[in-house]
Amino acid sequence: MGSEAEKAQWADVTPDAARRLLTAAVEAFAERGYHATTTRDIAGRAGMSPAALYIHYRTKEELLHRISRVGHRLALAMLERAADSDAGPAGRLALAVRGFARWHAEHHTTARVVQYELGALAEEHYAEVLALRRATDRAVRRIVQDGVDAGDFHVPDVGGTTLAVLSLCTDVARWFRPDGRRTPEEVGELYADLVLRMVGAEPAGE
Amino acid sequence: MGSEAEKAQWADVTPDAARRLLTAAVEAFAERGYHATTTRDIAGRAGMSPAALYIHYRTKEELLHRISRVGHRLALAMLERAADSDAGPAGRLALAVRGFARWHAEHHTTARVVQYELGALAEEHYAEVLALRRATDRAVRRIVQDGVDAGDFHVPDVGGTTLAVLSLCTDVARWFRPDGRRTPEEVGELYADLVLRMVGAEPAGE
Repeated sequence: MGSEAEKAQWADVTPDAARRLLTAAVEAFAERGYHATTTRDIAGRAGMSPAALYIHYRTKEELLHRISRVGHRLALAMLERAADSDAGPAGRLALAVRGFARWHAEHHTTARVVQYELGALAEEHYAEVLALRRATDRAVRRIVQDGVDAGDFHVPDVGGTTLAVLSLCTDVARWFRPDGRRTPEEVGELYADLVLRMVGAEPAGE
Repeated sequence: MGSEAEKAQWADVTPDAARRLLTAAVEAFAERGYHATTTRDIAGRAGMSPAALYIHYRTKEELLHRISRVGHRLALAMLERAADSDAGPAGRLALAVRGFARWHAEHHTTARVVQYELGALAEEHYAEVLALRRATDRAVRRIVQDGVDAGDFHVPDVGGTTLAVLSLCTDVARWFRPDGRRTPEEVGELYADLVLRMVGAEPAGE
């Protein structure tokens, strides 16, 4: 697990052993994939026995579910704060994109696991995560629609544009490298500017 | 493996058994991940024995390498055709994005394997694929730079914009569903329009 930000997201998980197991699971899933990882691998990474793991998590899927839920809830909370803020549509969209893109850079390891292993969730857990994803979509769609209604944005397809904005930010987790050319903050700034252009909030070249 | 387009990309692979093994490997890697897949799984999906697999491929990694190379070469050829076309910068960029986004929708299973399992390639194969990825980046960057030089595009950061354009199209493979709301063609059209706005080729709202 790379960054301090990535570790900080699990700060609420107690006791310490349960938190160590979660971060070990994120690392193991990211490196080898969910299906190639055993609970023994995860316990070993956390410096614990498989038996100790079962005190905290009944199954490997429970670990994935916890990771996915925390990741989705944090991302959703951030987007809802942006959507609810007092700024105008352009300011709210910039806030949302800056935060969401930056989050996917800082939490790229967790985000990859969350995005690429959705299919491994149990049915009821997938349904729960899907509801969080729909709420995420609604938060951004609301900003885009408000911008269109206010005459600030010029967007022929609100749903399609919302999808593209979320997709652009999500894919940061795939290509971001901590030793790469751009910091998470710089990615956030670049993307906020590109998305404002995309919705026609800032006529190009001005 | 979903679409006819997805099957067609392997048409050049002979003999028939080698081609069947490649498509079986794509399916298996996409479903369970590279590390959780055995050569026995792949042979079984292709209706063959593990011994028959080794006639065509020495290792599981050789299969991944072939898949990755074919996928990257097809995508690069398409982008270079767009970059070399006679149209102006906006026409070339629209052509590139329409084709690249559509390709990631039609070939979403292959594209996911290619993108998410890069880390499993052997060192020399990764270097080869990285060269193809850099050429892909150059093809799009050339169009964006030509548009800026011609005064048709208004882009503060050519490298960052190129990265975002490629990333937006690549992530189609993650979210695209054949039974979803949009066809691959419609995704291509939507994205070409959004990217032209992003580079300021088409002042918003006009």
